[in-house]
Amino acid sequence: MTKEVHFLPDDVKITVDDNENLLAAAAAAGVYIHAYCGGDGVCGKCKCKIEQGEAGVSGPPADKDGFRLACQTTVKGDLVVSVPEVVSKDGRALKRKPKTTRAISARSMSELVGSWQLDPPVEKRFVKLTPPSIDDNTPDLQRLLGEISKGCRDCAEPTYDHPQLLQELPATLREADWQVTVIMLRGKRSEEPDRIIAVESGDTSDRLYGLAVDIGTTTISGLLLDLNSGKVMAEASAYNEQIRFGEDVISRIIYAQKPGGLEDLQEQVVRTINKVIENVCQQVIISPSDISYIMAAGNTVMSQLLLAINPKYLREAPYVPTCSQMPLTRAAAIGVYAHPSVRLFLYPSIASYIGGDIVAGVHACQMHKSPALTLFIDIGTNGEIVVGNRDWMACAACSAGPAFEGGGIRHGMRANTGAIENFHIHPETLDPMIVTIDRTKPAGICGSGLISIVSELLEAGVIDQQGKFNRRLDHPRIREGYDGYEYVLAWAGDSLIGEDIVITEVDLDNLTRAKGAMYAGYQTLLESVGMTFNDLERVILAGNFGAYIDLERAICIGLLPDIDREKFYYLGNASLTGCQISLNDINRFRDRVEVRKLMTNMELSENPQFMNHYMAALFLPHTDMDQFPTVREKLPS
Amino acid sequence: MTKEVHFLPDDVKITVDDNENLLAAAAAAGVYIHAYCGGDGVCGKCKCKIEQGEAGVSGPPADKDGFRLACQTTVKGDLVVSVPEVVSKDGRALKRKPKTTRAISARSMSELVGSWQLDPPVEKRFVKLTPPSIDDNTPDLQRLLGEISKGCRDCAEPTYDHPQLLQELPATLREADWQVTVIMLRGKRSEEPDRIIAVESGDTSDRLYGLAVDIGTTTISGLLLDLNSGKVMAEASAYNEQIRFGEDVISRIIYAQKPGGLEDLQEQVVRTINKVIENVCQQVIISPSDISYIMAAGNTVMSQLLLAINPKYLREAPYVPTCSQMPLTRAAAIGVYAHPSVRLFLYPSIASYIGGDIVAGVHACQMHKSPALTLFIDIGTNGEIVVGNRDWMACAACSAGPAFEGGGIRHGMRANTGAIENFHIHPETLDPMIVTIDRTKPAGICGSGLISIVSELLEAGVIDQQGKFNRRLDHPRIREGYDGYEYVLAWAGDSLIGEDIVITEVDLDNLTRAKGAMYAGYQTLLESVGMTFNDLERVILAGNFGAYIDLERAICIGLLPDIDREKFYYLGNASLTGCQISLNDINRFRDRVEVRKLMTNMELSENPQFMNHYMAALFLPHTDMDQFPTVREKLPS
Repeated sequence: MTKEVHFLPDDVKITVDDNENLLAAAAAAGVYIHAYCGGDGVCGKCKCKIEQGEAGVSGPPADKDGFRLACQTTVKGDLVVSVPEVVSKDGRALKRKPKTTRAISARSMSELVGSWQLDPPVEKRFVKLTPPSIDDNTPDLQRLLGEISKGCRDCAEPTYDHPQLLQELPATLREADWQVTVIMLRGKRSEEPDRIIAVESGDTSDRLYGLAVDIGTTTISGLLLDLNSGKVMAEASAYNEQIRFGEDVISRIIYAQKPGGLEDLQEQVVRTINKVIENVCQQVIISPSDISYIMAAGNTVMSQLLLAINPKYLREAPYVPTCSQMPLTRAAAIGVYAHPSVRLFLYPSIASYIGGDIVAGVHACQMHKSPALTLFIDIGTNGEIVVGNRDWMACAACSAGPAFEGGGIRHGMRANTGAIENFHIHPETLDPMIVTIDRTKPAGICGSGLISIVSELLEAGVIDQQGKFNRRLDHPRIREGYDGYEYVLAWAGDSLIGEDIVITEVDLDNLTRAKGAMYAGYQTLLESVGMTFNDLERVILAGNFGAYIDLERAICIGLLPDIDREKFYYLGNASLTGCQISLNDINRFRDRVEVRKLMTNMELSENPQFMNHYMAALFLPHTDMDQFPTVREKLPS
Repeated sequence: MTKEVHFLPDDVKITVDDNENLLAAAAAAGVYIHAYCGGDGVCGKCKCKIEQGEAGVSGPPADKDGFRLACQTTVKGDLVVSVPEVVSKDGRALKRKPKTTRAISARSMSELVGSWQLDPPVEKRFVKLTPPSIDDNTPDLQRLLGEISKGCRDCAEPTYDHPQLLQELPATLREADWQVTVIMLRGKRSEEPDRIIAVESGDTSDRLYGLAVDIGTTTISGLLLDLNSGKVMAEASAYNEQIRFGEDVISRIIYAQKPGGLEDLQEQVVRTINKVIENVCQQVIISPSDISYIMAAGNTVMSQLLLAINPKYLREAPYVPTCSQMPLTRAAAIGVYAHPSVRLFLYPSIASYIGGDIVAGVHACQMHKSPALTLFIDIGTNGEIVVGNRDWMACAACSAGPAFEGGGIRHGMRANTGAIENFHIHPETLDPMIVTIDRTKPAGICGSGLISIVSELLEAGVIDQQGKFNRRLDHPRIREGYDGYEYVLAWAGDSLIGEDIVITEVDLDNLTRAKGAMYAGYQTLLESVGMTFNDLERVILAGNFGAYIDLERAICIGLLPDIDREKFYYLGNASLTGCQISLNDINRFRDRVEVRKLMTNMELSENPQFMNHYMAALFLPHTDMDQFPTVREKLPS
C-alpha cells in the first residue's frame, strides 16, 4: 500500500510506501530540511509539523508550535506536512522546484513485464493406476506412462529420469496402492515430450513450489513461489559468500586459478543459495524438497562458477565464454539443498560480460516483443547496456569501475546501514540534509548517495563541471585535504565511524570516469546502429542500484541522457523477475530463446569510437552541453 | 576355415572346423566308434585310419594295419577316414544312417541376420576450428557446434553432455590448438539431434571401438568391435560372478532382498563385465577408455540387477517388470571401466521372463522383417519361445527347470571340461561311445550329452517311451540303483571323479518334464494364434545351448517338433549378435523399437491349455506319436 505526502510550503507531493520515514520521504521529494545526523534523531534539526492525516510518532514531544522531528515520524496515512521555510541569509524564502521523478516507478514495472498465465514449466499430476493382474502385467513404468498419456492422442510419450526414479518406482507404486503424484518437467519446446522427474506417494499436487534466484556477485536473492497460485510466498537474500575470495568478478576469476579455487568458489555460492533456500522455506514451513524447480540468473562469471566451469578465458582477450546456453543441471548434483531430481535452470549468457542476469532482465521486460526502440541499462561495476527492440538488439558491457558500489571512493561503502543514500544542500548556507540507510548516524556513502551529493554540489556551484571545488568559497565544510579539496559531509562527532566523512576531488574524478564510461557506452551502441538518443522511445533502468537512482540527479551528472523523463522506467531486480515469470508461465519461459537469438554483443574495450566518446564524457555532465539542455539551464552560469 | 571329413565304411560326410578332434567329428557325424574314456586316449578303443588327407596326430603310433586313436587325431585338411565296422554279435556289419543335421549351421547364421551397413550409432569427427578473435568471440561450445553443423542446413544442432564436457572444453580446445575430435552419439531416431559426449585433443578418429556384451545368468560374453572397419577385434567371456549368490535367477532375486544384496549383485555383474573388458582390451592393446559405446543384452532379471533396480516383483504374480525400455546409462556411473561419458545401452525387456536377450536375438535374425511364420527358441532353465513374423509376434517363457544345464540330474554338470557332450551306443553290445569336452575322462553329463544319451537309449530300446529301463535286458551297465534303474556310462575307474557315472530313471523323468514344458509352450503359443506346427516356415534355435543341439536327437526325445529339418536354423549367441549388429549399423539399431512393439507376452504358468499340452508331452517323444512320424519309424516297436 502507498500513501501520498503533501509537503508545505513547497507544495510538493510524493507517493511513498506505508510506514516510510518522513525525513526520507522529504529527501526523496526534494524537500530540504536541515539534518546532519542521517535520521538518527540526535541532531534535532529536521523539524516538521503534521497538518493533516495519520502519522506514527516517536522521539521527543512536539515543541510549542507543534513541530517535531521528521526522522522520528512515519507515514501511516495520506499526510499534509509543513516544514520550515528555506530562507536565504537575508531571511528571504527560497522557492524551489521538485527535484525528483521517482513517482514513475510505481506503475512502470507492471507495464513493462506485462501479464502472464499461470501455466508453469513444472507440473504435478495425481494419477490412480489400475493395479496389475495376470491378464495385464505391463511393466510399472509403461503402466504409469500409459495412464499419463490417456486422452492425449497426439502428445509424445513422456521421457523419464533414471536411475533413481526407476529404482524407487516399484516400491513407491505398491506402497501408495497405485495412487501417486507425478512431477513432470514440460518439454523445452512445445513439441518436445514432458519428462517425469519424480513420483510421490498419494496426492501431493497441492504442494508445488518454485524458486527464483538472482545470483549476484555481491548478493544472492531468492523468491519462493507457490506455482499453484502464482503467489510469492517468501523472499530472502544473502551476501554471496564467494566475497571471502574477492569483492569483484576479476578477483574471483583469479582465485579460481589457484588449486582448489574453482571448487571453493562453487561451494561458497552453493552455500549461499542454500542459505536463501533455508530462509524462504522456514518462512512458510515447507521442506526444501517441496521445491520442484529452481530458475536462476547471474552474470557469466557467476554462472560458470556455479557449474564449476573455469572462468579463466572470460577475462583474457578475446573474452570467450565456455558456452552460451547453460546446461539444465540437477540442483542436488552441485550441492544445492533440493530433491535429487529437481533441475536448476540458468539463463543463457551472451558474452563474457553480458550474462544471464541481463538476458533474464531483457526477457522480463519484453524488449523482444516491443517495436519501441529501447535502451536497457544495468549499472554496476560492470555496466551492461542493451539497445534494440523486437527486431534486433545490440549489447555491450563497459567497465565503469566500482564507484557506484562504493569502491574507489574515500568513504564509499555498500548500501548498508549508515550509508548516506540521499543528500540535499542548502543553496546558501551549504548545510547538508543527510539521510542514511536505517536512519543511523552516517558511516559512509553508497552509490545513490554519491550521485545525490555530486549533483547537489554541482547545482549549488560548490564544484565545477570538471569536478573541482570552487576555491573561492569560504566555508568550514570545504577544505583542502591530502586528496586535494574536499567537502565535509559529517563531522567526526556526528558520524558513526568517529572521523569526518568527506567527498574528495579524487572521489569526484572516479565517479566522473564511471558515469563517463556508461554514457560513452550508450552512445557507441546507438551509433553502431545509426541511432541517436533522440530515437529512443524507452530507457529501462534495471538492477538493484537502478531502482534507487534519482533520475534528475543522474541526468545532472551525465550518467543518464537528458531526454524526456516520461521515457524512463524502473525495473528493479529484473533478473529475479525474469526467473519469476519463467517459473509461472512456460510460454514466457520458452520465449527466452528469442531473446538470446536477438542479442549481439559488441566489445567496447578495443573500440576507438568508444574511447572518443569516453574522453568527451569526462565532464559533469558532459563536454557537449547541447546534449544536456535541462542541466545547462539549472547549473550556475 | 572348415574341412570335410568322409567316414568309411558308413559313407558319411561332415563339415567341421579346422583342427577338430576326429573322435568328436565322428560322434557329430553319427559314426559309432567304441570309446569310453571320453577322448582322453587311455581306453585305446577308438581306432581309425587316415585314408587320405592331412591330419594332426599324437599318442601311440599306428598299429600294423595303419589304425590309430581317433581321439589323438585332429583334422588339418579334407579327410577320408576308415573306422572299424560296427558288427552285430554274429559278426554281421550293421548298416546305419547318418544321425545328424549339424551341417545346416554353417550357412544359416548369415542367412538369418542378413547384411548390414557400417554406419555406427557412435561417431568420431575431427574438426579444425578457427581460433577466436576480438571480432569473433563466440563461446567455445557454440564455436564447436557451429563447425559441426557446417554444411548441414537441415540437421538439428547437436546436444551435449555436461557438466564434465563443458568443464573440460575450454582447456581441451586451447591445448589442442583448436583441433579436436568430437565423439557423438547419433540421435535415437533419425530426426533427433546427435549428442556430443566427449571432445578429445587432436585427431583420434582412427580409434573408434564398440563393445557388445551378452549378460547371461551364468556367463557374460563380450565382443570388441572396431567401428571404423566393422571387424571383431577380440572376444572374451567370464562366469557371471553373481553366481556366488545363487546359480539361477530365482536365487539371485531372493538374495537381492537381503540388506545390501542388490548392491552386491550389481557390483558382481559389473566386476564380471570389467573382466571381459580388460581381457578384450589386452588382446588388442587398447585402453578401455578407447571404447566409445557399449551395447548389452540380458534377461530381465540380469538387466534390472545391472541397473540396481530391485527384481522382486519379477517373480511374484502377476510378474511385473519395472520397465520395458532400459534407460541409456553412463557405464562409468555403475562402475564399468569406461570413459565417464560412454553410454551403456541395454536391450528392452518384454516381460519378467522375456528379456533383452530375446529381443536382441529376434532383432538379430530379423523375424520382424520376414513374412515367414517363424518359431524362435532359446532353451535354458527358462525356455523362451517367440512365434510370429513381421506382422505380429507372440512370446512366452516356460520354466523348463535346470535339466539342460545339468541341474536335477545325478551326474549333471555345466558344459565344462569332462562333461559328456556326445554319446552313441552300440545297438547290440550296448557299449558306449563317449566324447567329453576337452577330451578328458568323463566327469559328468552336460545338456547336449543328456539329449544324446536319452535319444540313444530310446532308439536302442534300453529305455521305453515312459523313460523306464527295459527290465528284461541283462547287461552289466544296466542295474538297479537307489534312484531306480540306471545305465552306467562310465565305470569308476574310467571316470574323472572316481565313481560310476550313471543316468537314472529320476534323471530321465526330469529331462522329460523339461522338454515337455518346452514342447507344450510351442503348442500353446501356436494354438493361441490359430496355427499348428505345419504352418511353421522356420524354426530358429538361439542361445549357446541351442548351438550344440543335435537336431535329430532333440526331435527324437520330443524337445523339438518333428518337421522338415530344412526349416531349422542355428543362430548361436543371438543376443550378442544383436548387440554386434546394432553397434555397426544405426539403422538396424533403430529398428529394435519395432521388435519390441511387435512382441506380445503370454503367461503360460496359469494357462490351462498349456497344462493339458504339458501332461501330453510327458512321454518320449510324446503321447501323440502322430506328431512324431520320423521318430515312430526308427523306434523299436
